[in-house]
Amino acid sequence: MRVLYGTAMAQAVQASIGDSEFDRDTALTPRTPGVYDAELSAGWTIMRAVNGGYLLALLGRALGDALPHPDPFTVSAHYLSASRPGPAVIRTEAVRSGGSLSTGQASLFQYDKDGTEVERIRLLATYGDLDKLPAEVRTPAAPPPFPPYEKCLGASDGPRPPIPGGSEILDRLNIRLDPATAGWAVGAPSGKGEMRGWFSLADGRDADPLSLLLTVDALPPTAFELGIKGWTPTVELTVHIRRRPAPGPLRVALTTRNAAGGFLEEDAEVWDSENRLVAQSRQLAKMPAGR
Amino acid sequence: MRVLYGTAMAQAVQASIGDSEFDRDTALTPRTPGVYDAELSAGWTIMRAVNGGYLLALLGRALGDALPHPDPFTVSAHYLSASRPGPAVIRTEAVRSGGSLSTGQASLFQYDKDGTEVERIRLLATYGDLDKLPAEVRTPAAPPPFPPYEKCLGASDGPRPPIPGGSEILDRLNIRLDPATAGWAVGAPSGKGEMRGWFSLADGRDADPLSLLLTVDALPPTAFELGIKGWTPTVELTVHIRRRPAPGPLRVALTTRNAAGGFLEEDAEVWDSENRLVAQSRQLAKMPAGR
Repeated sequence: MRVLYGTAMAQAVQASIGDSEFDRDTALTPRTPGVYDAELSAGWTIMRAVNGGYLLALLGRALGDALPHPDPFTVSAHYLSASRPGPAVIRTEAVRSGGSLSTGQASLFQYDKDGTEVERIRLLATYGDLDKLPAEVRTPAAPPPFPPYEKCLGASDGPRPPIPGGSEILDRLNIRLDPATAGWAVGAPSGKGEMRGWFSLADGRDADPLSLLLTVDALPPTAFELGIKGWTPTVELTVHIRRRPAPGPLRVALTTRNAAGGFLEEDAEVWDSENRLVAQSRQLAKMPAGR
Repeated sequence: MRVLYGTAMAQAVQASIGDSEFDRDTALTPRTPGVYDAELSAGWTIMRAVNGGYLLALLGRALGDALPHPDPFTVSAHYLSASRPGPAVIRTEAVRSGGSLSTGQASLFQYDKDGTEVERIRLLATYGDLDKLPAEVRTPAAPPPFPPYEKCLGASDGPRPPIPGGSEILDRLNIRLDPATAGWAVGAPSGKGEMRGWFSLADGRDADPLSLLLTVDALPPTAFELGIKGWTPTVELTVHIRRRPAPGPLRVALTTRNAAGGFLEEDAEVWDSENRLVAQSRQLAKMPAGR
């Protein structure tokens, strides 16, 4: 039997939950109870900023370890200062533990020149066990129309769109955009606050509740289709994980309805291969002055 | 000149911001810097529970005092245990102060039999100055259709609907429901997760950012139109205040799209008399077992 090494082998074997790039880059080293060291990877940056959903996944992993319940149900994060690749520490606090839900608080800090901790994000989250949800479906939301995967546009369909400051994160994601929301990539933004695409991790790892925290913030922002040039930093982001995702690619739909007064909200919905709503979020983001 | 006293006079004079029932019942007594005593009024209960939006307004008032910026922009609250009428204490912490935004944390506690503080709610909030928002409106959301005020159904249109556990709060609110979302009140819920109505405070006080925190949680819940009997307690509630509301009645639209797995989300949008989106929120609520 010939043993294959190298790129061909790596491409042939899909990563599984636990040994994927995503898991390596969100790994934590316990320091003391409730305190975890982390390394923010430069691989998850866009426009020079560490992706907010990647940061949420790191914090989510910490609280999943610190709290009695394993899965994030609702996570509400306030982004205080911009994170950058490099060392970080996460400090958690158990706030309340109940029978089916527990609530915790977590902060991510980095270090300034003299080693002082600077808080980047503070969040509250309520955790439960997604495997213990009642099976009943009273009124399920239905996904919006998406073109089939083959008709959507991905990395192989054209040059990397010119995103100022780079887009390292795109190497780790397999995103295929609905052509109706890809005009920005060829200099023709639609003017509508919409972004839709198929989503999976580039190394094939299946989705799970932690990767859903990344997923709601991983698509190009609706700001691109609104013709907004420049970074729209996230002020606050609340995510609800509604169901454990089935294996297979996800569909993500972003919507912005109210861009006014210097802020916009961006709503995300994530649908799995069984057409179920697995995650939903809203973030409030600040628009650049003078757009 | 005859001086009029009593009910006729009280009805003739609208309350103004500051001396309304809402302001009296959300008043705080500073104890030490950042710590405020409060009294949770029985006047703002429904189904024996102290209304979540009223609690948010109390916490919002505390942070408005404690932080350098006056107005809530985004408030994310996790509800830990059920509040009841009676004494409470709010403890705040300034987390980060910036040029245009500052972030704080606040908790509301009540007292158990031996005086130990029991945490009811913990929240994070980012504050700013709504009067300093840029005037530009890039892509404004538009309100959904509402029947005119006179065609909507209020307290004078029929007996108080039978809400188990009472509905004290309704005495303090002037809500007129879209008839299309009022079937529950006559035992004929539509089965659709929608609730719409005109909203103002019963004593005529104009809306402001603090009363908007109440408003997003003040209408009958979509659960009533979904035919769900029994309390759907709020697990988490995030509110964004987008604009200082103009004077006059508000329109509130609630939507639930995904009631599944024992939870539902309820989205609220609040529109002012200038047709502007002044507040939006999402809450995650737990459905009663077996509905």
